Amino acid sequence: MILSILFIFSLIFSFSNAAVQDFCVGDLGLPDSPAGYLCKKPAAVTVNDFVFSGLGVAGNTSTLIKAAVTPAFAAQFPGVNGLGISMARLDLAPDGVVPMHTHPGASEVLIVIQGSICAGFISSSDNKVYFKSLNKGDIMVFPQGLLHFQINAGKGPALAFVSFSSPVPGLQILDFALFANDLPSEIIEKVTFLDDAQVKKLKGVLGGTN
Amino acid sequence: MILSILFIFSLIFSFSNAAVQDFCVGDLGLPDSPAGYLCKKPAAVTVNDFVFSGLGVAGNTSTLIKAAVTPAFAAQFPGVNGLGISMARLDLAPDGVVPMHTHPGASEVLIVIQGSICAGFISSSDNKVYFKSLNKGDIMVFPQGLLHFQINAGKGPALAFVSFSSPVPGLQILDFALFANDLPSEIIEKVTFLDDAQVKKLKGVLGGTN
Amino acid sequence: MILSILFIFSLIFSFSNAAVQDFCVGDLGLPDSPAGYLCKKPAAVTVNDFVFSGLGVAGNTSTLIKAAVTPAFAAQFPGVNGLGISMARLDLAPDGVVPMHTHPGASEVLIVIQGSICAGFISSSDNKVYFKSLNKGDIMVFPQGLLHFQINAGKGPALAFVSFSSPVPGLQILDFALFANDLPSEIIEKVTFLDDAQVKKLKGVLGGTN
Amino acid sequence: MILSILFIFSLIFSFSNAAVQDFCVGDLGLPDSPAGYLCKKPAAVTVNDFVFSGLGVAGNTSTLIKAAVTPAFAAQFPGVNGLGISMARLDLAPDGVVPMHTHPGASEVLIVIQGSICAGFISSSDNKVYFKSLNKGDIMVFPQGLLHFQINAGKGPALAFVSFSSPVPGLQILDFALFANDLPSEIIEKVTFLDDAQVKKLKGVLGGTN
Amino acid sequence: MILSILFIFSLIFSFSNAAVQDFCVGDLGLPDSPAGYLCKKPAAVTVNDFVFSGLGVAGNTSTLIKAAVTPAFAAQFPGVNGLGISMARLDLAPDGVVPMHTHPGASEVLIVIQGSICAGFISSSDNKVYFKSLNKGDIMVFPQGLLHFQINAGKGPALAFVSFSSPVPGLQILDFALFANDLPSEIIEKVTFLDDAQVKKLKGVLGGTN
Amino acid sequence: MILSILFIFSLIFSFSNAAVQDFCVGDLGLPDSPAGYLCKKPAAVTVNDFVFSGLGVAGNTSTLIKAAVTPAFAAQFPGVNGLGISMARLDLAPDGVVPMHTHPGASEVLIVIQGSICAGFISSSDNKVYFKSLNKGDIMVFPQGLLHFQINAGKGPALAFVSFSSPVPGLQILDFALFANDLPSEIIEKVTFLDDAQVKKLKGVLGGTN
Repeated sequence: MILSILFIFSLIFSFSNAAVQDFCVGDLGLPDSPAGYLCKKPAAVTVNDFVFSGLGVAGNTSTLIKAAVTPAFAAQFPGVNGLGISMARLDLAPDGVVPMHTHPGASEVLIVIQGSICAGFISSSDNKVYFKSLNKGDIMVFPQGLLHFQINAGKGPALAFVSFSSPVPGLQILDFALFANDLPSEIIEKVTFLDDAQVKKLKGVLGGTN
Repeated sequence: MILSILFIFSLIFSFSNAAVQDFCVGDLGLPDSPAGYLCKKPAAVTVNDFVFSGLGVAGNTSTLIKAAVTPAFAAQFPGVNGLGISMARLDLAPDGVVPMHTHPGASEVLIVIQGSICAGFISSSDNKVYFKSLNKGDIMVFPQGLLHFQINAGKGPALAFVSFSSPVPGLQILDFALFANDLPSEIIEKVTFLDDAQVKKLKGVLGGTN
Repeated sequence: MILSILFIFSLIFSFSNAAVQDFCVGDLGLPDSPAGYLCKKPAAVTVNDFVFSGLGVAGNTSTLIKAAVTPAFAAQFPGVNGLGISMARLDLAPDGVVPMHTHPGASEVLIVIQGSICAGFISSSDNKVYFKSLNKGDIMVFPQGLLHFQINAGKGPALAFVSFSSPVPGLQILDFALFANDLPSEIIEKVTFLDDAQVKKLKGVLGGTN
Repeated sequence: MILSILFIFSLIFSFSNAAVQDFCVGDLGLPDSPAGYLCKKPAAVTVNDFVFSGLGVAGNTSTLIKAAVTPAFAAQFPGVNGLGISMARLDLAPDGVVPMHTHPGASEVLIVIQGSICAGFISSSDNKVYFKSLNKGDIMVFPQGLLHFQINAGKGPALAFVSFSSPVPGLQILDFALFANDLPSEIIEKVTFLDDAQVKKLKGVLGGTN
Repeated sequence: MILSILFIFSLIFSFSNAAVQDFCVGDLGLPDSPAGYLCKKPAAVTVNDFVFSGLGVAGNTSTLIKAAVTPAFAAQFPGVNGLGISMARLDLAPDGVVPMHTHPGASEVLIVIQGSICAGFISSSDNKVYFKSLNKGDIMVFPQGLLHFQINAGKGPALAFVSFSSPVPGLQILDFALFANDLPSEIIEKVTFLDDAQVKKLKGVLGGTN
Repeated sequence: MILSILFIFSLIFSFSNAAVQDFCVGDLGLPDSPAGYLCKKPAAVTVNDFVFSGLGVAGNTSTLIKAAVTPAFAAQFPGVNGLGISMARLDLAPDGVVPMHTHPGASEVLIVIQGSICAGFISSSDNKVYFKSLNKGDIMVFPQGLLHFQINAGKGPALAFVSFSSPVPGLQILDFALFANDLPSEIIEKVTFLDDAQVKKLKGVLGGTN
């Protein structure tokens, strides 16, 4: 009886030479595709491909913004490749700030684990600001591609985890996009209406040239 | 100067009568669509539509499974409607178990906030089990639609938050699907190979009939 | 006149060096991607890549479940790769059963060609069972990811063809997922509420260990 | 013990007022959406919404083309709404033909149940024809949007079932699109290079005007 | 002969009561859905629903930015609803600028019709700027969600048309998002590193409060 | 102060070894995937990958159809790969015609830049023709996969640009699909109802055989 069922078991997929695709752990050494990294061979996949411990460690907040973002996107955690989801950790020391930024490819949901955080986003249709102070256990959703920010609203450190609707959400931090590259100051001023002194000051701080 | 810029501001979208869709907070009173709930009128939307506090409260674990799942799907948190993401809270008392289940419409990523959790999933292609004990700060991803489970692996209570790649991930708990309805025992036995006594025992416990 | 039109013909796509992608026959020897197999070179594609004869032969039903599933997924029939569809053949001898299973990545539609089949699925939202006896020519749809089954409801053999909304629908058979691997019995019992004797009996039959 | 588990059962979704979306049976009386029909209320859904018997009856082939196409798209079979799949039945009497046509919104897979059928499609990139005589049990895939046809290649009647990668695949039959409406003959001739006599003859047969 | 073919014609879709969905012209008076506006009844649709003349008229550039953006998104041109595409017109007087902005929901391709335009975007992964002067007939693509800008690079007026990969691409203009609402200056300064004087100056110009 | 911010800057992505995917410029030398070409290495990408000048030159209209289509699809303009959009240029000399055709994989929007163009498409559900004369600045949308055409409706040359909702829209020109290959005349006649003389005449003109 055992034998015959086992026999069936192998028969059921008599034509299957490669089987179905339950997951596609990214192989970062192969070329990328528009849908994500190419897949590691299934035989080489272990449970460790689906587990990531990098978010268990606080990021370094001994910095000017007094905050750190630690991503677990497909590039750091190849197990999420192709699965439509990823995460990151936010650490905010007192007065810490995650500066104004967007995720070009994903919506985000944030959960406060410790402390309190003032978070907000700005709609594109009418420039309306949606912001609120969030406490431990509160969650907030940030629609895809919109400018948003997080500020430590308490006296102690704050900790939050964020999840994204894509394994490659992207992260475009406004100040770095404007001031941490070689885009000529003249162009920046034209397209942002900022004063020359302001632009040059922030370029100086953030390492921009031209 | 101020006037003329404000003037331009209104001109830029001189044809816009309804503007673009940044979000679509679900109106649960209207009919559902294949892509999610129809949208609440933008003018009625406030920041509170994007914030949910229901995950800040521990679920009731004074039960047989000693665990509770508290969802923040589109039906509970209409702000995520149409945004490709949602969350839930897992509370596991000592010996607590989230029984074998699937999410038919989403991949999941879990982060351990407190305690330690043994979590695993089973691939469909070769029935291989991927499971591991996770500690505080560890994250694990569960590919869409595959059977998976979580067990409290420590001595104290455990807490985790899970995120999904859909606002309507679904949750099909195996035992409830099999034993908490009126599917005739004879059919259950035929399609699961379970013994009649086993089926009737669990139907008794879970409220199934026939 | 002929010449000049032919001339135009070649001119119309004067910039086209690789042309558009009508199809992407899977090359099973190359790495997989999250969107499916990489494509065979168009020049090597023939009509035989789009035709599959494997479903014309009855599967072996001389087994305990008295049924056989013969897939024509992308792994067996690379012509469907990237096209959002695939098929399989179900043969059910008298008393044959396709055991409780899910397709993690696709909805399914079944058509009865011969005999009569009792088919059903279980919703995740309220564990409601939708099942019915189907006769020749009847079709039934099974929503993505939900547990479902098929049983020969007649006295003679039954034949059905099923189609899926993905070239890689996956197939997770509940009993194989639970009992045909090395997931420890203790864990299985915890997450399914099944008795130890029941688990060990089915592990014995299906080849599971631990 | 029973009570307490039942108690948990209700607790697990204490916040759930509408539950998740396993399916979205189309309500044809409500407005349509870009993603398909709006959903019938779940409480009104029965197993009969997921079963369709219209494909069990042969279409009328006592006609000039000696063939009939019987659709089970979302408009005929609202159970497939939102599920990414649909079907149709092809009956071909001896000499029967399903004329050149496209499905603008879906790929198709065909299975021959009776007789033999010559089927083919034409690629857009190089106008190459892929066609072959198919016998009972053979399947063939037709990539989305490409012109294709089916001809009875045997002496007796032929029967096939086709599945589509969308609940609303569309069906644009070339001759009806060209000759069964009021598009002026002069325009048709300009954009097809067909002779005036040919156009007028087919307009006469198919009921076109102008 | 005519009669019999016409007869077949009506028979072919004997079950079709609503037919397939070729398009879904938006009905702006009905609720919106996550996939776009609900559809106008097909019987009320005319060719004028698919044609839009609003881009034939130059926008008003007698303003401070000396530029105008005229959208033909789903809200202005309901014929594109559900079709994955939309357009807009850019008019740039000498020295005109389309300020730094993003489209949260679409990629964009721009074609220069008149004059010359300096256009650029900034990548999120490494803050690299990709910019170039474009002449008549040149096209440039801007990946989804990334900050980008256009500046008149010639001495006369410039005209460009842009297309988007969505009927609702959104348009978030950086300065309006930051300075044309009631987001408190203190918060803006914290999340942008801008000086208080700079923030208040631009709030003054753009009508922001707080 | 500068140093410490720069220091944070590098810390923020301390785990990032490959960064996120803002774009995926196609590498035409690598295998294709169902989601588009594999990506060129980011380090090799320059602004020139995102700019294409091929549409600035009129196509050759000194031909029988007196028209030319110049594509900027992913194969010609790899910068649009994976971004859901592409373009083409239409030149129509007096009496020029873009013959009846479909794009199997995309919707299209056309803008008239010069002259006037009579454009139309045919619905699949009821074979209704939607056509109109378009003037400079008018735009028209053509839903995915439907037969459509463009005719110069003025006395001088006409110029239009078209955009597509896919980087690989495809282009199947009806006459080339029917008459510019080796599909046997007997089959063509059977599936199109065209007369033998008509088929052979057009095969002669367009280079078809058999």
